[in-house]
Order: sequence, then C-alpha cells, then structure tokens
Amino acid sequence: MSLNPLLSQIEFIKEIDKLKYIQRRTKLFNSDRNENDAEHSWHLALMAIVLAEHANEPVDLFKVVKMLLVHDLVEIDAGDTFIYDTQKDHTNTDEERLAAQRIFGMLPEAQAEELTNIWEEFEAGNTAEAKFARAMDRLEPLLQNSSNQGGTWKEFDVPYSKVYNKKKVIKEGAASIWDYAENLLNENVAKGILRKD
Amino acid sequence: MSLNPLLSQIEFIKEIDKLKYIQRRTKLFNSDRNENDAEHSWHLALMAIVLAEHANEPVDLFKVVKMLLVHDLVEIDAGDTFIYDTQKDHTNTDEERLAAQRIFGMLPEAQAEELTNIWEEFEAGNTAEAKFARAMDRLEPLLQNSSNQGGTWKEFDVPYSKVYNKKKVIKEGAASIWDYAENLLNENVAKGILRKD
Repeated sequence: MSLNPLLSQIEFIKEIDKLKYIQRRTKLFNSDRNENDAEHSWHLALMAIVLAEHANEPVDLFKVVKMLLVHDLVEIDAGDTFIYDTQKDHTNTDEERLAAQRIFGMLPEAQAEELTNIWEEFEAGNTAEAKFARAMDRLEPLLQNSSNQGGTWKEFDVPYSKVYNKKKVIKEGAASIWDYAENLLNENVAKGILRKD
Repeated sequence: MSLNPLLSQIEFIKEIDKLKYIQRRTKLFNSDRNENDAEHSWHLALMAIVLAEHANEPVDLFKVVKMLLVHDLVEIDAGDTFIYDTQKDHTNTDEERLAAQRIFGMLPEAQAEELTNIWEEFEAGNTAEAKFARAMDRLEPLLQNSSNQGGTWKEFDVPYSKVYNKKKVIKEGAASIWDYAENLLNENVAKGILRKD
C-alpha cells in the first residue's frame, strides 16, 4: 500500500473493475444475457433506496447501500457460487475471507476496516441493515427468473421447496415484500415455470 | 402507476434493468470491452465512498451516492452521448428531461420528486455534492483511457486541450484529485497516448 492515501485508493478503484467480469448464473430481465456482479450490485443498491419503506425495522439506509455496493467484491478472487449449488457452501468460505483481506486491504487502514466490517455484517446477516440488504439480494433474481420463464430454476431443475427455502429470508428483512414474493412464487408454480415437489 | 406503492416500485426496478444495455464509448480497464451505464454507475458510487475525504467541501455523501446511482438513468430513453461529440450538447437536452419525467415518474410521487431533484442537482452541477459527483464521473474514464493506451482519445483523435477542458471540472469537486489527474494527463502526453495540440 502506498504512503499516499489517494494512490492506494486509485489502485483499489482499478482493482475492483474486475467485478464487471464476474458472471452470475442469473440472466437480465426478459433476456438471455448473464448479469455481472457490478451491474447486479448497482441494481441492488438502487432497489434498497426505492424499497426502504418496506424494511421491517428502521435501517441506516446508507449502510445498507454500502453493503450492497461491496457485498460481492470478494468474488473477484473467489468467483460466484451458485446459490443452489449442492456441493459448495454459498457463503463464508475461507476463500472469501482471504479475498476480503486482500481487496479491502488495498485501502488505507481505517477504510479497509470499515468496509471489511460492513462486508462481515452482511455475511453474518444479523443486523436490521444486513437483513434488509439480504432481502434485496434474494429479491432481484426472483424477479429475473419470473421474467425469464423460470430462468435458472428451469435450467438447473430447482424445485419449489428449495427456492422457497432460499427466498424466505426476505421475510426477515421486509415482511411486506415477502408477501409479494410468496405470491409470485405461487404464480410461477401455477404458470408451470417453477416445479412443485 | 399502481395504487400499491410496492407494485409501482417493482415496475421501476424492472424498467431500470435496461441501463445494463446502454453502452458507453469508454472501455473497461486494460480491456477492449465497452462499459455499460449500470456498471459505470456502480463504480462511481463506490469511488465516491472511497475518495470522499478529498472533496473540497464537506458533502452529504449518501446524496452523492444516490446521484451517481441515478445519474445516467435518463439514457435508457435518451442514449449515451459521447462527451467529445461536437454536434450534440452533452447534457440537459429536452430528451433527457422527458426521460427523467417518464422513468422517475413510475415511482410513487414523493420518491419520483426526490430522485428527479437529485438528478437535476447533478445536472446543474452547482452544489458541493453535485461538484464532487461530477468529479467522479470525469475521473473514471480518465483512469480507463490511461490504462488503455489512450482509449477513446486515440480512437476519436481527441487532443489534449479538449480533454483538459472536460477534465478540469474535477478541480471544482476535489482539488487534490485534480492535481493527480493533471499529472496523469501530462504523463499521457509524454507517453504519446494523448496528442498535444
């Protein structure tokens, strides 16, 4: 790290450009083009701003937005893990911790510490901010798959119960959004784009 | 617009997905792939968070971040205008105002008003927040072109004086970043990837 904070910050800014190359399994809305982590993070941040009134508890919205802007940066080193992957645990891998250390560690110490703490808070999912941020992270692909005739659910033959179990954490962050999401899941079953098991 | 605020907000969230298809002229760092407006907006928001200490005046950083997350949404309708285009004024076109009306207008009234005001404040460029946000918007492509052997400067034969005139607004938002940027421009001239006129 440079002794000049600005130079360290510029190096970090160049490094995180790599997030634009990390592809998710999910496709854009009504689309066949995979989403990348950078545009996904942008979308979630703006979703949080627009949907804030639905949070179960009062939240520090700027903290939620910071969480969402940085939540996937570790995937620059660790790669995107598919949420329905049965072989690999989706979060909290050692790989991701090392990635956080390396990437946030490029910044001046106080900033590195702030962003690492925010990322860890998101991963732990215990605070009101983390719960609401995680609700956004689960809502976006639900909307995308619904608009894509089932999307990754169809592609990887994921049944309703698995989707339901992953999505129900939305309720912990925003109960009214969960009501909407649960209805949407049922509609998708009725349409035949999500398989009831 | 739906009577249920959540449904209006969901429609807005689906609509803004289109920002991921709006291509900028600038390429990613060390890359031949064009950047899209959504990943560009993500990058600027995180740049603002990381570089905040360099703002000339104290800023409401969350407002800056909101500005940067929404600043290009009008391009969903109006398209990206190249900053060195000599035929068309880069900002404040009637097309962009209509786009703001349509896109922000999908949201419940109070939110539509807040985001429209924030976008207009960015466009006008008079407040401390807008000046700092605009500095970010000018800094990112400067870093990108520097990493791409001249990038759009070479591609469209843009001379130093034009680049300098566009970039010097960085000084209004962050003088220490401008010092860095001015040095970088001079280095690019010395390397022969920016043509002195």
